[in-house]
Amino acid sequence: MKQKGKNKRPLILVTNDDGIGAPGIRALVEVVKEMGDVVVIAPDKPQSGMGHAITINSTIRIHASQVHGVMAEFACSGTPVDCVKIAVNKILKRKPDLCVSGINHGTNLSISVIYSGTMSAAIEGALEDIPSIGFSLADHSIDADFTASKKIVQQLATNVLHHGLPKGVCLNVNIPTAKLKEIKGVRISRQTMGNWIEELDERKDPSGKPYFWLTGEFDNFEKGNKETDVWALENNYVAVVPVQFDLTAHRAINELKKWKHNI
Amino acid sequence: MKQKGKNKRPLILVTNDDGIGAPGIRALVEVVKEMGDVVVIAPDKPQSGMGHAITINSTIRIHASQVHGVMAEFACSGTPVDCVKIAVNKILKRKPDLCVSGINHGTNLSISVIYSGTMSAAIEGALEDIPSIGFSLADHSIDADFTASKKIVQQLATNVLHHGLPKGVCLNVNIPTAKLKEIKGVRISRQTMGNWIEELDERKDPSGKPYFWLTGEFDNFEKGNKETDVWALENNYVAVVPVQFDLTAHRAINELKKWKHNI
Repeated sequence: MKQKGKNKRPLILVTNDDGIGAPGIRALVEVVKEMGDVVVIAPDKPQSGMGHAITINSTIRIHASQVHGVMAEFACSGTPVDCVKIAVNKILKRKPDLCVSGINHGTNLSISVIYSGTMSAAIEGALEDIPSIGFSLADHSIDADFTASKKIVQQLATNVLHHGLPKGVCLNVNIPTAKLKEIKGVRISRQTMGNWIEELDERKDPSGKPYFWLTGEFDNFEKGNKETDVWALENNYVAVVPVQFDLTAHRAINELKKWKHNI
Repeated sequence: MKQKGKNKRPLILVTNDDGIGAPGIRALVEVVKEMGDVVVIAPDKPQSGMGHAITINSTIRIHASQVHGVMAEFACSGTPVDCVKIAVNKILKRKPDLCVSGINHGTNLSISVIYSGTMSAAIEGALEDIPSIGFSLADHSIDADFTASKKIVQQLATNVLHHGLPKGVCLNVNIPTAKLKEIKGVRISRQTMGNWIEELDERKDPSGKPYFWLTGEFDNFEKGNKETDVWALENNYVAVVPVQFDLTAHRAINELKKWKHNI
């Protein structure tokens, strides 16, 4: 890719965790390619639940792809975070003006932000000082309707290109399944306190040995709290949470300084 | 495992990301088995860089193991986070009093906390409301000397069992390679602002097709800042950072609420 001139169109990096062929990334690209020059680098297979994994004990492959009809596109054997690293360090000649990840097939609310490949790609974008957004639609199905999502992506991406984002912050956007006219608007929220209660679905293989599927139900510790992302989505708002990568619990520092250690 | 009586010894869960056979987890177990009843569930192979990945598109296996001579131990085909989930939901009959992860062969300073399997296991422990600590030694080698580390683990684990930890907080502990008498003490720190500058090491396979190894150098944005974990370690302190899993950038909420959206 060549560096653009002064009046350049925005350069927009697109990735996801469901894989380059997923309908969600197709919908996302359809919107942002009207807004700028688009480069897609996305996993060559589903990478849900990969969190902030990177490939360091194995090699990475990238293959040119022509699924989306944009300036450049690549399928990558690695994780969503690998995709952003490779885009920034190998593919792109300048820092993109925007990085968008998704549209994920299914929500990434509450604590799911730390398990989500979609959001980890956006967080990696923020780490690279790129305004970044992860989009998720509350519908897991392959034939989910992205009509309303496309309008919401267009609005939020336009706003982020215009305003920028605070340093070290990206956006986690969860979109309800309602029709556009039923969606009540954007609600700036915070990560709901809650946890997944896992059930390990134990099965036997053909030789009788056990194996497990991880499955679970979300336990919301703050039901009805209107500041939370779960409440916003359940009430037909687009839930937008600003997400940071400084994990320091600053509030705990003074307390811990009081401990005595015999070292 | 049976539930213990009233005067029970602490129940301690041990995991890591270097795999159940790594010297670092052996050193960790040697210390904590003097302090309580120990259950080990650790990956059956190295899982460095797995971040908060979980296994949801594939199955998980666990195998009984007898490497460490503790109450119970298992090798798991999944990620460090999977190990904690399986321990809590399948193996243990009650919530452990402490979860320790490591001792990692190599540091997990600054932003590496989000790529680190060691720390993701500790964060998952905190999510389950278990006082949790991730330990890392600044030495990658297989024959690293864990003598000083064992004393430090013993001190910090004892303190965490005694004091508990603030809700939603675990500890990221990085240990210098110095001898114990040269270590200046524990320094409560915060995550250093910095980033990895990646180099993609491009090679050709035997058929001439390119593949990549991810490699990089850390860029410290806060050199010399005595509040940071990198400074602490470089100056022969044990760097202890309280880590949280609420990723909300609360400081950004009011600013984002001012934006107008046509939705």
